[in-house]
Amino acid sequence: MKIGIDMMGGDFAPLEAVHGIRQYAGEGGTAHLVLVGDEGQVAPLLPGVPGSYEIVHAPETIGMHEHPTRALKEKPRSSISVGFHLLATGAMLVGSLYSLKPLEGILRPTISTIIPKEGGGTGLLLDVGLNSDCKPEHLNQFATMGTVYAREVLGIATPRVALLNIGEEEGKGNLLAQAAYPLLRENASIHFIGNAEGRDILLDKADVLICDGFTGNIILKLAESLHGIAARNASDNPYFERFNFEEYGGTPVLGIAKPVIIGHGISKGRAFKNMILLAQKMIYTEVMQKMKV
Amino acid sequence: MKIGIDMMGGDFAPLEAVHGIRQYAGEGGTAHLVLVGDEGQVAPLLPGVPGSYEIVHAPETIGMHEHPTRALKEKPRSSISVGFHLLATGAMLVGSLYSLKPLEGILRPTISTIIPKEGGGTGLLLDVGLNSDCKPEHLNQFATMGTVYAREVLGIATPRVALLNIGEEEGKGNLLAQAAYPLLRENASIHFIGNAEGRDILLDKADVLICDGFTGNIILKLAESLHGIAARNASDNPYFERFNFEEYGGTPVLGIAKPVIIGHGISKGRAFKNMILLAQKMIYTEVMQKMKV
Repeated sequence: MKIGIDMMGGDFAPLEAVHGIRQYAGEGGTAHLVLVGDEGQVAPLLPGVPGSYEIVHAPETIGMHEHPTRALKEKPRSSISVGFHLLATGAMLVGSLYSLKPLEGILRPTISTIIPKEGGGTGLLLDVGLNSDCKPEHLNQFATMGTVYAREVLGIATPRVALLNIGEEEGKGNLLAQAAYPLLRENASIHFIGNAEGRDILLDKADVLICDGFTGNIILKLAESLHGIAARNASDNPYFERFNFEEYGGTPVLGIAKPVIIGHGISKGRAFKNMILLAQKMIYTEVMQKMKV
Repeated sequence: MKIGIDMMGGDFAPLEAVHGIRQYAGEGGTAHLVLVGDEGQVAPLLPGVPGSYEIVHAPETIGMHEHPTRALKEKPRSSISVGFHLLATGAMLVGSLYSLKPLEGILRPTISTIIPKEGGGTGLLLDVGLNSDCKPEHLNQFATMGTVYAREVLGIATPRVALLNIGEEEGKGNLLAQAAYPLLRENASIHFIGNAEGRDILLDKADVLICDGFTGNIILKLAESLHGIAARNASDNPYFERFNFEEYGGTPVLGIAKPVIIGHGISKGRAFKNMILLAQKMIYTEVMQKMKV
């Protein structure tokens, strides 16, 4: 198994990626890692790092503020561009759409996030930012993809799917939610349990929560902020500890042929390790192929 | 000053409203309270309750699951209908639109919520559910109304207004946010500071956060759930204590001529007291009249 890593992504590149590789190998990980990045920066960090890996040189850098598709065209030697040409893992969003085609029948690839639930389990929320304007049929496909992912990767046999909405009954919500509800109800590939409200997000009402990427991204970033807030306010609350998104590694892109996982900009070693482990699991379970509609 | 109270609203009606009245009067409140509700249920609770009040009999009840505008028509003797005919305070949402006209120039009345900020202050988030589908010009008016409310009622001299969005730069976001940004930038009645993201909601980036009512309602209900979660998880975190929305009483409807405050269904005595105090402040400051555009 080969797993590619964009060594130049994130605020602490490439050092924290190297820390992640060291942790991964140190805990017995055996995948062959393809390290895509500036050889001059990456190679000096590797002596003493265990495991099986090689460097693929990619000297150009794409900044956060560059126009994504233009940058990919103009910088074919960036780590993201090179990585995608290697069908590598662990790179950026727009790259994944630019270089990897959606699965047959998938209208819109999507990204999800793990939500730590109060009861102890984890839920899945999607879309969390790839599709800021959605149509009802997009939400319906997110439900199918989220169900496959929750079953194969999170190990939930029959994931309960809910539509994130602003009321409990059918007919509530904005025009998108009103139109999506009947599609979800008729979707035979999912176990639809109806609407969920904001107050249900952190509870155990549903396993897969469906929404447009605008709403989902705001919820994701709000949830991410809870960990720091609890820590800064000297909370000893074990639940809010679980909002440390380092634990979950990164966000897989669903609906494309190869597993691609997007890391947070602030990812440190543990997040990189967890992204490698997640990529490994996604390859083993063939979860991506199971999302074809 | 007369303040009306819908005695029949909420899960604990009318007992908790009476507790609120007792607390209000006990703490020196002097407004004359008009108690709208079923006299047979309300009157027996009043002996020994201090303060200045009268009962206006309204024997009909509107349930949570009734169609709101139809129920108002069919039940003219419900506490909400009667209350609105008295231009009363503390009643339900749809009632306010049905019976109270928007202010001149206001396209859409809106509702907001207080957001406790980590630094200690409070922010305002709107819309939180009255307008689940919005146009850019609606968001722009929410910004103006939110600015007036934050200045007059929250006492923030020059409220910083931000557009809730999924990226920092202009041009980010869904179609609504992209189109609203330039309107907000050109709005001379507000101090617009740009986009805010989900991670900024609980921080001190802005004083007034603008979004559509679908997004805002989900954030509001998620935020409301944090208090119970922190309490159930034995947190001693003083910050999450502040997510007890009992403290804030209720949600004022902005953009109509008279102050109307919507209570939560689970409001208890303290919330009723705080709603009466908020109504009092809104009348004193004439905040509603200042929102005319």
